[in-house]
Amino acid sequence: MDESHTKNKNYGVFGFSGRLGREVVSLFKENGYKMVYGRDDTEEIKDSNPSFLIDCSLAVCFDENLEIAEKFSVPLIVAITGLTEQQMQKLKLFSAKIPVVQSNNFSYGIQVMLNLVKNADEKLKDWDVEVTEVHHRFKKDKPSGTAEMLKNAIKKENINISSLRLGNVFGEHTVKFGGLGEVISITHSATSRRTFAEGILKSAQFIIDKQNGFYSFSNVVNNNFKK
Amino acid sequence: MDESHTKNKNYGVFGFSGRLGREVVSLFKENGYKMVYGRDDTEEIKDSNPSFLIDCSLAVCFDENLEIAEKFSVPLIVAITGLTEQQMQKLKLFSAKIPVVQSNNFSYGIQVMLNLVKNADEKLKDWDVEVTEVHHRFKKDKPSGTAEMLKNAIKKENINISSLRLGNVFGEHTVKFGGLGEVISITHSATSRRTFAEGILKSAQFIIDKQNGFYSFSNVVNNNFKK
Amino acid sequence: MDESHTKNKNYGVFGFSGRLGREVVSLFKENGYKMVYGRDDTEEIKDSNPSFLIDCSLAVCFDENLEIAEKFSVPLIVAITGLTEQQMQKLKLFSAKIPVVQSNNFSYGIQVMLNLVKNADEKLKDWDVEVTEVHHRFKKDKPSGTAEMLKNAIKKENINISSLRLGNVFGEHTVKFGGLGEVISITHSATSRRTFAEGILKSAQFIIDKQNGFYSFSNVVNNNFKK
Amino acid sequence: MDESHTKNKNYGVFGFSGRLGREVVSLFKENGYKMVYGRDDTEEIKDSNPSFLIDCSLAVCFDENLEIAEKFSVPLIVAITGLTEQQMQKLKLFSAKIPVVQSNNFSYGIQVMLNLVKNADEKLKDWDVEVTEVHHRFKKDKPSGTAEMLKNAIKKENINISSLRLGNVFGEHTVKFGGLGEVISITHSATSRRTFAEGILKSAQFIIDKQNGFYSFSNVVNNNFKK
Repeated sequence: MDESHTKNKNYGVFGFSGRLGREVVSLFKENGYKMVYGRDDTEEIKDSNPSFLIDCSLAVCFDENLEIAEKFSVPLIVAITGLTEQQMQKLKLFSAKIPVVQSNNFSYGIQVMLNLVKNADEKLKDWDVEVTEVHHRFKKDKPSGTAEMLKNAIKKENINISSLRLGNVFGEHTVKFGGLGEVISITHSATSRRTFAEGILKSAQFIIDKQNGFYSFSNVVNNNFKK
Repeated sequence: MDESHTKNKNYGVFGFSGRLGREVVSLFKENGYKMVYGRDDTEEIKDSNPSFLIDCSLAVCFDENLEIAEKFSVPLIVAITGLTEQQMQKLKLFSAKIPVVQSNNFSYGIQVMLNLVKNADEKLKDWDVEVTEVHHRFKKDKPSGTAEMLKNAIKKENINISSLRLGNVFGEHTVKFGGLGEVISITHSATSRRTFAEGILKSAQFIIDKQNGFYSFSNVVNNNFKK
Repeated sequence: MDESHTKNKNYGVFGFSGRLGREVVSLFKENGYKMVYGRDDTEEIKDSNPSFLIDCSLAVCFDENLEIAEKFSVPLIVAITGLTEQQMQKLKLFSAKIPVVQSNNFSYGIQVMLNLVKNADEKLKDWDVEVTEVHHRFKKDKPSGTAEMLKNAIKKENINISSLRLGNVFGEHTVKFGGLGEVISITHSATSRRTFAEGILKSAQFIIDKQNGFYSFSNVVNNNFKK
Repeated sequence: MDESHTKNKNYGVFGFSGRLGREVVSLFKENGYKMVYGRDDTEEIKDSNPSFLIDCSLAVCFDENLEIAEKFSVPLIVAITGLTEQQMQKLKLFSAKIPVVQSNNFSYGIQVMLNLVKNADEKLKDWDVEVTEVHHRFKKDKPSGTAEMLKNAIKKENINISSLRLGNVFGEHTVKFGGLGEVISITHSATSRRTFAEGILKSAQFIIDKQNGFYSFSNVVNNNFKK
């Protein structure tokens, strides 16, 4: 491993002690990455300058974190959900100078599901569509952002989303297409939070040599984007 | 086969040429029954006096049919959905003189499901509950009467029902119980209309020797009722 | 409607009184087609020369039917399942002179599912795959031909097929892809035999102006084939 | 809290550093219990005498652990899977002197499912039955012990079990009953290992004041057992 390669594996995390943050730190370590910068609501760790940054914190911390990211001036992966319109605008301006990956869902399977759903939607012209999502009882927003994303991927109109809240189900999304005489269902179930950490790892591998710009996780997965 | 037994197999049907009516006539024939009286919006057939009557017509025909049933003075099975409160009252008065079975759903499996759901509900005290129903796109009422019946069978409060409308799905009902760490689902899918005809056949076998009174399909299936 | 158009709607059916045959005759009638030739194990009807032929009979009748088809020398749609290798060879030779559509499953949804499964398979490289099929208790072959077709559409090796036999379930096929942390399932359920009749109707519309050749139902659905 | 109560919360664990062991230690701590004895393949911890013992280790360690348990002479909960017939015999002999709870599955939901399945089986006399289980790709035994338990709870014969191995699915069991025209499915999905730790906690609360004897987890859940 040459030095530049090693250096590329030094990274920083905002929100490193949160649920997702810990999962990220653990997976990146397994893959030879080293957390050289970390920030949380109680502490800031800095061993050296990171080659890229990951934000796994909360929307309320975003603005401060962005200022710090600006100083480091390295690629940024944003895995915060619930950013405001204004924060999204800020992030897009930022991406004019620095490469950014942003997504509400870093699960690879959800990206694959989105493709399948678009594909099915095109082929099943007069069929009905129903979107269903099941999440743990603690989830307050209804419907989930991912269910909205699925709905928006479908060209048909007036699509109904059913939201179920059950125990501690990690996350399940189903799109059902119904024709006269047949039903096609596409379901994605998440069985662990690690899935999201893996999507962030893929994003890190993707962004390290990209030019300035705003990338979605779909760009990462499909490796398609406008230069 | 003695004569009284044979006579008990002579029956009449209101709405004999409708979807359910035809299914009933076909199944009863297979089981050695003979339709000796039939009535529809276009014709009335009368070969001899029926030993019992089945009403598979529509709520708008109910009052007239009840008058005819009163003249025959034989047990009556009512498989019409959407009876008004007033019509139900009339039917209950009628049942003081003549045995009546009435239900919105003559599927045996739904009765079994109701028992399972009650059983699970008692055992799963702090679990969340979600009811889902899927029906064909032509079904206008949301939620289905059967979903309401399932909801009412559960002692927990504030139960959410999700209704999906898809193609020509015959009818699917699911109750999901979610605890922390586990989910139990109970699903009933109807795959043909014959199921309902079979419930009506069971009701015919049940009612032929019963005393006056108002019986539900649950009484038929569980053979439990107050004398 | 000009005469040639009308003439194109005159057709013949081998096995016209079987389950699928009756469904085909009924659907084609609704769409303005006229059965001018019919053959069954007990009778042969011939009003005039058909513009195309459909074989909904059984493998044991295939050879005789093919001889008759040869005399009519019109496009042929073969919806028989369980043809032998030898019969398939014969049919392919026949297609050198006359356009033929052959498939084991004329459900449009299964074709869409096949595309989705191939798509998912390419994207989900290291994931496990499981194929499941549920059919009525009367189905004797295990696994179903459609399950084999799904398995063959997937490039991974050693794929397990689970076969369930239950009541009178019309037909349900599921392909599950499992990664570490997520599962994607694609399910197709048939809810009526009409689906297959509709696939045969699409095939009739497709084949009427095609040149000699052997076409699959996938060619019909995707309208892609080598000239 | 009086002293005896506190003392009852001192316990020991064989296999305290394994996957299930850690989950048990963590949950028991949350509930005010104190691990005063622990044993593993690398170390033995002993602070004081435990009031009861839990064996979360492996079948190969069972015999040695049982000898240690004999010395402590306190109630024992055995959560090891894959005990040999001989080991089960040994455990039963042991239970003549000391109360024992043994089960292959300490999930409360699976016990409830067993009851539902028995209930459905009795009501659905001529229906077909199919058992399906889905587990992570690392599970080597096929079918799962729980699937066998479900099969044995059903009085029908020649029941087929389908086993799917997918990603890291924690555990899903389904029993489907199929009649002519309807299907009833009962599914249990585990979403975390904590479920099992909670079953062990219930067992600890149950066994602390029981007399010598061999108890199943079903006895714990239903609180029914012969004295």
